[in-house]
Amino acid sequence: MNINENAAPNPPRVALAIGCPAGIAPELTARMLVEPTVTSKTRLVTVGDRRVIERAARIAGVDLALEFLRPGDDLPDSSARPIFVDRADLDPATIPVGAISEAGGRSALGNFKYAIEMAMRGEVDAVAFSPFNKSAMRLAYPSYEDEGVFLAEMPGIDGTASEFNIIPDLWNARVTSHVPISGVAALITFDRVLRGLRLTDRIMRESGYEQPRIAVAGLNPHAGDNGNFGREEIDVIAPAIAAGQRQGIVCQGPLPSDTVFVRARKGEFDAVLTMYHDQGQIAIKLLGFEQGVTLLGGLPFPILTAAHGSAYDIAGKGVANPGAMREALLLAARMGARRQGAKAHAA
Amino acid sequence: MNINENAAPNPPRVALAIGCPAGIAPELTARMLVEPTVTSKTRLVTVGDRRVIERAARIAGVDLALEFLRPGDDLPDSSARPIFVDRADLDPATIPVGAISEAGGRSALGNFKYAIEMAMRGEVDAVAFSPFNKSAMRLAYPSYEDEGVFLAEMPGIDGTASEFNIIPDLWNARVTSHVPISGVAALITFDRVLRGLRLTDRIMRESGYEQPRIAVAGLNPHAGDNGNFGREEIDVIAPAIAAGQRQGIVCQGPLPSDTVFVRARKGEFDAVLTMYHDQGQIAIKLLGFEQGVTLLGGLPFPILTAAHGSAYDIAGKGVANPGAMREALLLAARMGARRQGAKAHAA
Repeated sequence: MNINENAAPNPPRVALAIGCPAGIAPELTARMLVEPTVTSKTRLVTVGDRRVIERAARIAGVDLALEFLRPGDDLPDSSARPIFVDRADLDPATIPVGAISEAGGRSALGNFKYAIEMAMRGEVDAVAFSPFNKSAMRLAYPSYEDEGVFLAEMPGIDGTASEFNIIPDLWNARVTSHVPISGVAALITFDRVLRGLRLTDRIMRESGYEQPRIAVAGLNPHAGDNGNFGREEIDVIAPAIAAGQRQGIVCQGPLPSDTVFVRARKGEFDAVLTMYHDQGQIAIKLLGFEQGVTLLGGLPFPILTAAHGSAYDIAGKGVANPGAMREALLLAARMGARRQGAKAHAA
Repeated sequence: MNINENAAPNPPRVALAIGCPAGIAPELTARMLVEPTVTSKTRLVTVGDRRVIERAARIAGVDLALEFLRPGDDLPDSSARPIFVDRADLDPATIPVGAISEAGGRSALGNFKYAIEMAMRGEVDAVAFSPFNKSAMRLAYPSYEDEGVFLAEMPGIDGTASEFNIIPDLWNARVTSHVPISGVAALITFDRVLRGLRLTDRIMRESGYEQPRIAVAGLNPHAGDNGNFGREEIDVIAPAIAAGQRQGIVCQGPLPSDTVFVRARKGEFDAVLTMYHDQGQIAIKLLGFEQGVTLLGGLPFPILTAAHGSAYDIAGKGVANPGAMREALLLAARMGARRQGAKAHAA
């Protein structure tokens, strides 16, 4: 791995939207506000309801000293205390802990939308959120499928975001995602594979890799076995990899997908670009994705969160493991610092 | 797990064909001949060249006392020493160690064929072999793809064998195998899924499971997400599972393939039936298949081997790990004992 850890003198601003108020999101958010590895590398702008974060601080057993703003207030250039934008939309006493509710889903989406709008206005360098609950989101917003779909429906957001799944020292991106297996092969085109490669390379550089080593999985068993079990490797994937290499991307493949993750685990690659959803997800979940990070890339700003869910079963108990959320914010900090640097350079 | 370990009073006969003579197969074979856990549960009938096994014994540092037969000799009912059928076809000094050769491939295939013929005549209860090298096999027998294809071309062998991949406490079987991804969905039929379920259940019972708990993977991402990403789960897989349950098979699904192996690793299931090659192989290889066992099931007798290859890089050094080969022979012993018992019952 070749991560560059150049701390910015003035840390990047990261919006942190509180996720599902009925789950572990508030208490994880409270912990992040006093986590020195995070607060030393970011200026957090937390978005939520003051009553939610204050209750969460009691649950997590932490003392918070925040500077509260109202929605629409200008962000101060610097602040001795972390900034909290109080949307004042949800009294946590009015929703059940550990259960889905329309009000909970609506509040989480409202926080997220506010954070995105700050990023679109350039007020923050990255967006993060603590875990959502998809069922609650769907109650509040029936077409909600995932963050990407929600974003695509927001005015002013152009193009589709790509999801990256990140565990320590290994990234996974995919060329197709929520597609039936019967439709995958037709979507594996030269353009899509090359676009996936270029996006992976770019986003990993933005996260601090100087030259990420990307393995590209084949589509078929044994990566097609020289065309015996499918020709996509020969006709499409190998030419796209060659084109990526000509553009300076350090990539290789197509490699059989049943051994590429074994090799990645040994440290041979920094990332695996897979052709379909389960090809990567089977591996990443076995490798410990519960403590991993999900990144939406391809937008003008990165969006990060913990890979785990809202954990209703342990909500309100103060026992949730904050490790993945911390990793998400540290990655937001690294990517935000790069954007900050790029903006300063352009100015 | 619910393995029954009823040792037969007269252990089952297991044919053990020496695999690629240029790899670790001979030395692993020599070790098995003095491995008490194996020799106490089987009457091994090893097939190969006397010069190969004698050199291998020196490499492995073991003393062998064998009873040598010639091809075609009747097997004695009992024997104080392990039986070795000397096919006298290969002087190991004439082929390079750690490299493919036509003579090596031909010898390995000859040993395997002889073992299969003994099983077809009912002289042994199970067949095992130490690792082959596919490239050497192809030199000797150009249409060689794997053991299943080779068997299908042997006169007297009917039907296709199904491959099972076995690691400690977890079996994996698959409905389709060496098929391009573009062709998988069309092959996922009610009949094929039910046949896979029934075969898995039957073979696992024959190996000692009283009532194997079988998880069935879905085909599509999130097992189709209620039809949003494909309908095979609803139209085909779920009805086949229901039919299996009505026939007394303990099975459930279709389950999302990116979490089914995480659950299996925790011990929730004894087996996962997957829909396509990499769905199972990605998981099984991450879970340690190098020390696993491969079983060809569906023939009148089981065929077993270590999942790893012929390991040319360490051949002749006496350092090969015999663990997987031992597990293969112990499973051959369990399955052979069942067949023995079934034959005695029928007689």
